[in-house]
Amino acid sequence: SPILLNSMEKEHNDYIKQEYVKNPHLDGMEEDILYHFNLSTKTHNLPQMFGDVKFVCVGGSSNRMRSFAHFILEQLKLPGNISDVRDICEGTDRYSMYKVGPVMSISHGMGVPSISIMLHELIKLLYHAKCRDVIIFRIGTSGGIGLPAGTVVITEKAVDSFFRPQFDQVVLGKMIVRSTELDEDVAKQLLQYSTELPDIPTVIGNTMCTHDFYEGQGRLDGALCSFSSEEKFEYLRKAYDKGVRNIEMESTVFAAMCRVCNLKAAVVCVTLLNRFEGDQISTPHDVLLDYQQRPQSLVAHFIKKRLGLMS
Amino acid sequence: SPILLNSMEKEHNDYIKQEYVKNPHLDGMEEDILYHFNLSTKTHNLPQMFGDVKFVCVGGSSNRMRSFAHFILEQLKLPGNISDVRDICEGTDRYSMYKVGPVMSISHGMGVPSISIMLHELIKLLYHAKCRDVIIFRIGTSGGIGLPAGTVVITEKAVDSFFRPQFDQVVLGKMIVRSTELDEDVAKQLLQYSTELPDIPTVIGNTMCTHDFYEGQGRLDGALCSFSSEEKFEYLRKAYDKGVRNIEMESTVFAAMCRVCNLKAAVVCVTLLNRFEGDQISTPHDVLLDYQQRPQSLVAHFIKKRLGLMS
Repeated sequence: SPILLNSMEKEHNDYIKQEYVKNPHLDGMEEDILYHFNLSTKTHNLPQMFGDVKFVCVGGSSNRMRSFAHFILEQLKLPGNISDVRDICEGTDRYSMYKVGPVMSISHGMGVPSISIMLHELIKLLYHAKCRDVIIFRIGTSGGIGLPAGTVVITEKAVDSFFRPQFDQVVLGKMIVRSTELDEDVAKQLLQYSTELPDIPTVIGNTMCTHDFYEGQGRLDGALCSFSSEEKFEYLRKAYDKGVRNIEMESTVFAAMCRVCNLKAAVVCVTLLNRFEGDQISTPHDVLLDYQQRPQSLVAHFIKKRLGLMS
Repeated sequence: SPILLNSMEKEHNDYIKQEYVKNPHLDGMEEDILYHFNLSTKTHNLPQMFGDVKFVCVGGSSNRMRSFAHFILEQLKLPGNISDVRDICEGTDRYSMYKVGPVMSISHGMGVPSISIMLHELIKLLYHAKCRDVIIFRIGTSGGIGLPAGTVVITEKAVDSFFRPQFDQVVLGKMIVRSTELDEDVAKQLLQYSTELPDIPTVIGNTMCTHDFYEGQGRLDGALCSFSSEEKFEYLRKAYDKGVRNIEMESTVFAAMCRVCNLKAAVVCVTLLNRFEGDQISTPHDVLLDYQQRPQSLVAHFIKKRLGLMS
């Protein structure tokens, strides 16, 4: 039977002010190979490469995260040009990773398992590099519920398919339940900063994380579908009533792992469609590109404020 | 409470000899956008592009699936050269897709959610293209249990973290349990063909599918680890006793969806390490490349036999 959420409260507080990792075995290892990044503590000087990192931005698509690195270079007015921004993980096609000044931009693929592998290796990277006071943002895309397409949703609570603010992790064949609480201050500040940007409609709300894009999100257009249009709408309506404003596929494990590892975290996703109006993403390509830019603009604005580059 | 496995038996038999999809809503759609492939029934002539497909091979890494497409071109002695083999999904970075004669090669990323999105859209693609008698193979990498690194494991049963041959799918907030039975004949034939190939040690065994690479597979080297080395070995030993010979992250949903959709399916993964001996993948790059070639060689051999290109 699941361990109570309350036990995680204690676990979390015990660990506060300690390192990001939470694994007593790591210190005994002669080498740590971050396999899916194609990096290792023996072949790379991680403190030198990453010691100054203060912000990590992650998103599903590798192309999008490369664009974000280019965008941040321009926004922070750093020296160099975009052709200097190289994929640090170019030896592998599992993830892409860029670093621009104090900002990392990393792709995580789609779904909880894919982002969880990336987060394990990222959190170890931050630990080996002796980083401190890092804030991590997931900047992604999502399906909206009851919002016009193109709305940015800052996540208040990441909830599962049953609308519970928890993430179930199997460890050695036993289910562990982890809290998915995110950093309240960062979320509030993001919402406030959004009012300073024109043309970026932004709300704060709950984000539902599913393990499937079709049946799991109540879509009628998958290869498999055993429910009616009415049943779909009933489920989406129930989600809306529970405060869910968008649906994506990574937020619960992102929130849970960052919380246990003491990393301040926020989730900022744009909605590509309103699920009350349909299931297929038929928005023209250039409009989608504009939508995808919105979480990037908001998070870049936050970073510039924190770095004192704007009043 | 979960629907019994037996109900799926009936559902499966009812559908036999029908189309691959199992969704009454699809026929009413004017257009079907396969969003993550960047293909659509309106913009692409799917029967013309894919109507002759008889074999689909899927694997996590896009580079590996491109190599496989090149390898198949050479093995089937088809006209054209490898520079002609283009990524059909080049408008998106979610998946890569190649077609060489009757063989498709597609990447699926890491983890159950990522492969499930791909499978929904692939199964709809096969349906729209009016394909018949298709066999699908997952050719992947895995961690081995009690086997030397480099062993190819043909999956007998795909099991979950609790060693059960089932996949739990949440549909509209309710848990549905699906059987993960694979095609017995294809598995047996693959095992037999493996004896005709030199230097490809092959076994048949159960494959455990987890939703996490670190805690979920009992690794001691993640950012989080709350168990001892002894507890890890106890879990791996229990898995071995249940017939598990390798661990990966996609097989249960692959088996479950193909079964419900009446697609003959097999899972052929090579082991990159023996988990009784360690957690980190420290094998040199060129040896890993040799290992990764083994499932490709075995499946290519199977395809050549089926096409009558070998006695």
